[in-house]
Amino acid sequence: MEVSTAEPDPSTDAFNGDCPGREVFDHVTSRWGILVLAALREGPLRFYQLRDRIGGISEKMLSQNLRVLARDGLIERMVEPDIPPKVSYRLTPLGEEGSAPLRGLLDWIALRATDIVAAQKQHDAKI
Amino acid sequence: MEVSTAEPDPSTDAFNGDCPGREVFDHVTSRWGILVLAALREGPLRFYQLRDRIGGISEKMLSQNLRVLARDGLIERMVEPDIPPKVSYRLTPLGEEGSAPLRGLLDWIALRATDIVAAQKQHDAKI
Repeated sequence: MEVSTAEPDPSTDAFNGDCPGREVFDHVTSRWGILVLAALREGPLRFYQLRDRIGGISEKMLSQNLRVLARDGLIERMVEPDIPPKVSYRLTPLGEEGSAPLRGLLDWIALRATDIVAAQKQHDAKI
Repeated sequence: MEVSTAEPDPSTDAFNGDCPGREVFDHVTSRWGILVLAALREGPLRFYQLRDRIGGISEKMLSQNLRVLARDGLIERMVEPDIPPKVSYRLTPLGEEGSAPLRGLLDWIALRATDIVAAQKQHDAKI
């Protein structure tokens, strides 16, 4: 993916509080939004699989996040004709692209969480 | 940075609601946490510079986020001996590493916010 290095467009810059970029930013950086997008990088998942994958998410919060991310064009709902119909969710190409840095972030957290907890303890010991 | 591709350690996996990884995840993915870390990638900044860079942040929220991120070992407060003393904030090596995917995310949002707003409009027109 090409990333522009030019001056940011104020209408898409998440640093600017009054721009569409900030709204998109709030969706893709919500706790559950990130985890839904990152989970779907592993492949399409059904509702109950997403619920089980993401520790602590309620069905209500999951439904709500799936609706927001579908409206943003980042995920899509697929209905397979079956009895009963099977519904699953997958990333769109746009969602695939946007979830790449989120996956990088989760990998970094998994790698460094222990160091961060150690930093917190060291900090608290100084107070 | 090497990123492990092994099975996630449950204690550092942000998908797991009961782990230190989730707490770290909540700090680095809070709206203001992300914007503070991303802003400091441009170099050390003083308090008022951060406040002006991040649209809509209150001084109270900025102070609170700076304290949390310093406790996590992601940023540090530097005091230059001057009259009055100059205080600025900069990323630690750990914060430098963790903010790289956040910067990637902001660049992606700047690039795609317009597409996402178009997807929202298209979605709303269908309802």
